[in-house]
Amino acid sequence: MAKRVGVLLSGCGVFDGAEIHEATLTLLFLDRNGARAVCMAPNVDQRHVINHLNQDETGEGRNVLTESARIARGEIRDVADVSADDLDALILPGGFGAAKNLSDFAEKGADATVEPGTARIIGEMADAGKPIGALCIAPATLVKALAHRKPKVTIGNDPGTAAAIESMGGRHQECAVDEICIDDPNRIVSTPAYMLGPGIKDVAAGIEKLVNQVLSMA
Amino acid sequence: MAKRVGVLLSGCGVFDGAEIHEATLTLLFLDRNGARAVCMAPNVDQRHVINHLNQDETGEGRNVLTESARIARGEIRDVADVSADDLDALILPGGFGAAKNLSDFAEKGADATVEPGTARIIGEMADAGKPIGALCIAPATLVKALAHRKPKVTIGNDPGTAAAIESMGGRHQECAVDEICIDDPNRIVSTPAYMLGPGIKDVAAGIEKLVNQVLSMA
Repeated sequence: MAKRVGVLLSGCGVFDGAEIHEATLTLLFLDRNGARAVCMAPNVDQRHVINHLNQDETGEGRNVLTESARIARGEIRDVADVSADDLDALILPGGFGAAKNLSDFAEKGADATVEPGTARIIGEMADAGKPIGALCIAPATLVKALAHRKPKVTIGNDPGTAAAIESMGGRHQECAVDEICIDDPNRIVSTPAYMLGPGIKDVAAGIEKLVNQVLSMA
Repeated sequence: MAKRVGVLLSGCGVFDGAEIHEATLTLLFLDRNGARAVCMAPNVDQRHVINHLNQDETGEGRNVLTESARIARGEIRDVADVSADDLDALILPGGFGAAKNLSDFAEKGADATVEPGTARIIGEMADAGKPIGALCIAPATLVKALAHRKPKVTIGNDPGTAAAIESMGGRHQECAVDEICIDDPNRIVSTPAYMLGPGIKDVAAGIEKLVNQVLSMA
């Protein structure tokens, strides 16, 4: 039986949604390892829509699940309908959507609130002892959801973000883009991805290691 | 000097824009080969916007260049401002956008018209003897733009699309998803990608070969 790995998306585009390369590479390495991706996203409004040419807010409204469906080629579920029983592991790609739509960490820092469906599935996975991977800025949302477990994660080396993670109860470890940070007791794996970049091949190296590690723990 | 490879996008999402996995994998394999991607797209309205959950038209308006910028992380140029002198090779990822926004092949078949900026850059590249790669349904638009050269391409094995390509003056060759079709005299390389699928690892195998072949000709 193929391992079933939830891929929790947060829209479609680095500045207001899921980072497209990180999400796509996650799907690639899962498929190459014979795992089955279960794409999902919360059925909520995006915090805002950013014009990716000039980074201005456009004033449009878009839905996180509907836009995430672009990355998933239409094969996606509302995270509210998925339970930890349906999954062997969970991975959260990054992009600002992971800190704007899955939580409001981008706006509120350590005082962030996690989107309810996201908080529930993360909590269920942790309670079941199933591994969770998080890329780029997504570890910040993960730490907020699992603060009572004092998770150890990386977001690369940004001092402000690292300090916010520590003040939420997490532990931050610096990490290169082609490496991963492993929290063995909590079964959490993270990699900096585009928090460091610089290029897609660099990001891919860390994501491939993360996927392999998560699958080995599942 | 790194080879400069134009990646001509057509929006962001398989049903109304550039296929996200195909575009991302093109960028990955270019970077791994030390080439520099020059992302670009026409600054025109999308033909329509499709809700990727249910494939309904939403009635929204979106711009092809602005949406393509999501895949390019903001680093993208209007194709109207790019000439063949700026590039060593050109690659067109697929997705319906390649046949809805770069031309109207999806609607008009062999009677299609190619978007002017797209037709110009393709024509300039061919006249300069620089290689062109095309994925998925993009070869149909490429054939329309270069019909006088009788290009040989593949879109996999769909009989209707193959017949339309032949009636536009092209020559169609069946091809597996993990293989490429090479037209040596015209320096054109194509691969079926998601015209066949089924999975991202299968598509990636053909795209990696296509990128390698295009770079070897550049």
